[in-house]
Amino acid sequence: MTQVYSGGTKRFSGIFTPIATPFRADDRLDETALRSNVAKWMTTSLTGLVVLGSNGEAAQLDDDEADRIVDIVREGVPRDRSLIAGTGRESTRATIDATRRAAAAGVDAALVRTPSFFKPQMTSDAFARHYTAVADASTIPVLLYNVSMYTGVNLLPDAVEKLAVHPNIVGMKESGGDIAQISDFVTRTPDEFTVLAGSATTLFSSLCAGCDGAILAVASLVPDACVRMAALVRDHQIDEARALQRRLLPIARSVGSSYGVPGLKAALDLMGYVGGVPRPPLRPVTSEVVEIIRGQLDTLGALAAPARAGALG
Amino acid sequence: MTQVYSGGTKRFSGIFTPIATPFRADDRLDETALRSNVAKWMTTSLTGLVVLGSNGEAAQLDDDEADRIVDIVREGVPRDRSLIAGTGRESTRATIDATRRAAAAGVDAALVRTPSFFKPQMTSDAFARHYTAVADASTIPVLLYNVSMYTGVNLLPDAVEKLAVHPNIVGMKESGGDIAQISDFVTRTPDEFTVLAGSATTLFSSLCAGCDGAILAVASLVPDACVRMAALVRDHQIDEARALQRRLLPIARSVGSSYGVPGLKAALDLMGYVGGVPRPPLRPVTSEVVEIIRGQLDTLGALAAPARAGALG
Amino acid sequence: MTQVYSGGTKRFSGIFTPIATPFRADDRLDETALRSNVAKWMTTSLTGLVVLGSNGEAAQLDDDEADRIVDIVREGVPRDRSLIAGTGRESTRATIDATRRAAAAGVDAALVRTPSFFKPQMTSDAFARHYTAVADASTIPVLLYNVSMYTGVNLLPDAVEKLAVHPNIVGMKESGGDIAQISDFVTRTPDEFTVLAGSATTLFSSLCAGCDGAILAVASLVPDACVRMAALVRDHQIDEARALQRRLLPIARSVGSSYGVPGLKAALDLMGYVGGVPRPPLRPVTSEVVEIIRGQLDTLGALAAPARAGALG
Amino acid sequence: MTQVYSGGTKRFSGIFTPIATPFRADDRLDETALRSNVAKWMTTSLTGLVVLGSNGEAAQLDDDEADRIVDIVREGVPRDRSLIAGTGRESTRATIDATRRAAAAGVDAALVRTPSFFKPQMTSDAFARHYTAVADASTIPVLLYNVSMYTGVNLLPDAVEKLAVHPNIVGMKESGGDIAQISDFVTRTPDEFTVLAGSATTLFSSLCAGCDGAILAVASLVPDACVRMAALVRDHQIDEARALQRRLLPIARSVGSSYGVPGLKAALDLMGYVGGVPRPPLRPVTSEVVEIIRGQLDTLGALAAPARAGALG
Repeated sequence: MTQVYSGGTKRFSGIFTPIATPFRADDRLDETALRSNVAKWMTTSLTGLVVLGSNGEAAQLDDDEADRIVDIVREGVPRDRSLIAGTGRESTRATIDATRRAAAAGVDAALVRTPSFFKPQMTSDAFARHYTAVADASTIPVLLYNVSMYTGVNLLPDAVEKLAVHPNIVGMKESGGDIAQISDFVTRTPDEFTVLAGSATTLFSSLCAGCDGAILAVASLVPDACVRMAALVRDHQIDEARALQRRLLPIARSVGSSYGVPGLKAALDLMGYVGGVPRPPLRPVTSEVVEIIRGQLDTLGALAAPARAGALG
Repeated sequence: MTQVYSGGTKRFSGIFTPIATPFRADDRLDETALRSNVAKWMTTSLTGLVVLGSNGEAAQLDDDEADRIVDIVREGVPRDRSLIAGTGRESTRATIDATRRAAAAGVDAALVRTPSFFKPQMTSDAFARHYTAVADASTIPVLLYNVSMYTGVNLLPDAVEKLAVHPNIVGMKESGGDIAQISDFVTRTPDEFTVLAGSATTLFSSLCAGCDGAILAVASLVPDACVRMAALVRDHQIDEARALQRRLLPIARSVGSSYGVPGLKAALDLMGYVGGVPRPPLRPVTSEVVEIIRGQLDTLGALAAPARAGALG
Repeated sequence: MTQVYSGGTKRFSGIFTPIATPFRADDRLDETALRSNVAKWMTTSLTGLVVLGSNGEAAQLDDDEADRIVDIVREGVPRDRSLIAGTGRESTRATIDATRRAAAAGVDAALVRTPSFFKPQMTSDAFARHYTAVADASTIPVLLYNVSMYTGVNLLPDAVEKLAVHPNIVGMKESGGDIAQISDFVTRTPDEFTVLAGSATTLFSSLCAGCDGAILAVASLVPDACVRMAALVRDHQIDEARALQRRLLPIARSVGSSYGVPGLKAALDLMGYVGGVPRPPLRPVTSEVVEIIRGQLDTLGALAAPARAGALG
Repeated sequence: MTQVYSGGTKRFSGIFTPIATPFRADDRLDETALRSNVAKWMTTSLTGLVVLGSNGEAAQLDDDEADRIVDIVREGVPRDRSLIAGTGRESTRATIDATRRAAAAGVDAALVRTPSFFKPQMTSDAFARHYTAVADASTIPVLLYNVSMYTGVNLLPDAVEKLAVHPNIVGMKESGGDIAQISDFVTRTPDEFTVLAGSATTLFSSLCAGCDGAILAVASLVPDACVRMAALVRDHQIDEARALQRRLLPIARSVGSSYGVPGLKAALDLMGYVGGVPRPPLRPVTSEVVEIIRGQLDTLGALAAPARAGALG
């Protein structure tokens, strides 16, 4: 039995994956697939799961679907692993409401994406008010979540430094690869504040800079490799870690900036999970991209024999 | 009685305003204020209203609130004026659903913002599939809506050119001020396709470039001035139109990029409407900004005596 | 004989072209070609020429070449047309020196590009000091020159407003297409300050916004069409001017953002001028691009019979 | 006597500093100061010096000044240290000429900044042709130099990968802090190709990613700390290195993006070098900034007693 990885003594340190939401061909939630995917991840060393994240197509789900997904996943995640749910909305009141619903469903922490629609007004002051109100109202710990690639706004170190002293704000996820900013987050927050990386293409560097773990789409595919990376950096085996990063880079790019959620879903199919179709306007990657991804997974030794032979598709 | 302005023979040409959503101090919809605001706009020459637009804080409303707002506004807008509703969502299915609800409530057209969360995947092809599916499913005409300032994605002329031939896509709103792109929209779409400007700071130039009208926050404040601008350009009175643009510029900037929705709400209060408080994380502008806006409106001769004297606040 | 076009009573109003610098196959200045090109432009209605501009590859010339070019062109431009020379350098002292040399060679005005290397330090204050020092030291009038596309810095309306009152700063060229900024330049400078457009793709809009003329690469190719555009806008023939802009757009894009100086040189060859080869690292456009440009010029009716038939190249 | 640091067996690995050019109050080169500065750096562990770099205000020097500077510095740098000179120009021919002059003056390698004026044309192909021509023509080794902050163009890993096999292109300097791109440079170039970091704010991360050393303005001020950083990472003392980075960060930011060359010159004055005045349009930092920088240097223990007491200025 694989041991559950803990990144250290901080709350929510370790390696998490933001799970995809499998849809059926008729664009409805595939509950059976979701259950089986979760069960399979529970056989890995992953510290825990993140549900309703960006990669879970949370922006495209209605509230009823979101609640249903949390219930299903919670059933499948035992208490020695952490379950985190994305609960960010554009308004403070909707965010508080979503966070309360997640808490009621037994989630361990809320990952709260920055509001972002009114970009010029999303100042550090606005973020401070928003997150303080959410953390005050929440019965579960709150993790800040900065994902500029999708939101077009940036949660600056100044704001994080102030928010990190709130007793109910226990950490953050930074999805970008700006290592100077990541270093600032590590440096300017208290020791007990958890900083999680979100970019697999800069995982090694983020861990060197002092991150306590990561929330990575690629960890849905090769969880043990991601856990191993964290352990190598912890043990100062820098050369081995750098070499591992190099090996992970192609698939990290594919399920990141290159092909996004559709790429992740194709890769999940290849790995024996059920990725399913992305929800429109997203659409599946082409068969050419499937072959690129298959090659990347195969090079990593991640594929079982049938997938290597191209039997899936 | 002021005459309703029609910008020409095209459907939905003319001058519209995207109305703000008044909230009470407890962050709930102020229905009384909404009704009275609409009644007041109906005494102006505005061609029609846009409900649930960006300036209506649509991103911060839940579906029940949105439906209620449409119902209230529809009651207040007679059939000789057009009522357009924003119905864009991140997923195609949610957009179709919102468009159908708006149609059922008697709205004349749907203004459909580009989905934007998964930016790298929001290609012209993705937009084409999305809008085609929405227009196919909608019983009311669809207007495309490009608002890069808030979405971080750009609906390119190539995509618009293709979509403009769909029988149920009758026009678009471009919120940006890139005059080359606006000119392309005008040039590359059929004669009967309506192109509406969304940036008051470049209204004069947009109308010169061939726009058929505009949807402007500033038209909530000085509707007759906006209507007059359109008439001046139509009549080739270029020098007068340019001079009018110069006069409108300060307040256009205040309710646009400078102070956004909170600025618009403060200006509405000064003009005798009920702006109300913006929904958090937005918050009201400071009293210094109120005075700046008061001065800008006063210079335009837009303020009644009590507001000029600073009696409001 | 074609009449020289004057855009009005302001100094340096009208239609200018920034002439290309013809090089021979061995990368040296082709003086004969330069002379014959200038002679040919002198048969058109162009108000004047700009030498050593961006399109003249000034960034790639050494000082001796630059001085030689000014001398040759000055000989070919009679006194009833204006000759402007680019004299911008990164340091204030080198700019002053280049401006003095141009003045000594009989140039009528200096077009001074913003310094730009140390971007974070290129504030409005830095620009104010730089331009004031240059204008103080210059015996000929100075024109400000903002070309963000190449410099990566922006000369803001605040700085221009301050500089425009200097008695020896008589105008400016704005190469970008941001119509709000162009309108600001027009609005915030004295009546006698000349604002020249630099973007042919937004020429019509820039003239509507109040520009006094333009400095355009495309005016090297179709000078009379550019002059006609200015006259149409002056006479408020908006529909005709907008239609002319539409016709000019393809070639304007080709010699602007799409193919740059190499595109301009290919177009010059097609029009019976000597474009010559661009200086490395620039290189000539491909034969496919030549055919695109040939088609664009032919559509405009600009080509003589031999060039239409593809005899050049 | 301090030992000269060598970063390893690769050519030009180690810690370099791009030296400032001291000007006198009359804006002329201060040769005496330059000599004394170089002599002082020769008492440190620096691997070598870079002359005519961005921080040397090379963009603001004329060719005669540049040649004179190289001659003076070469006299002061013994053969067991490396002297690198910046020789990049906008045209290929001028770059070749400058490189030849540097070689003739006894420089050990040329650091060739990307040409950048015609940004849309500065493709990977254009860079490949440019650098190949320069390296072919040069009798001394060539180092590529990517400094997007100043040039606005980016030398991509694809281009570097191709150029790195040229026998006379022995390495590169990357001035940016994009750790994914830096990692790509390390990964995709041959083992003997030297990758030098140029951003002191991300020095630790760049060395972890595999850089062979760095060229840093801050190494003009605290050379031994920079050398110690390189040694710590080499020895896998990650925690100590990360802590050192944290200490270096404030002064690194001051002489980098915050205050640039004027900040560096003020810091040099405080450290007992002669920074002198920056060349206009640059100007000295304010006295408030001098105090900020003094505080940062003092915290590092870098200041001698008189400078700590504020006796300089």
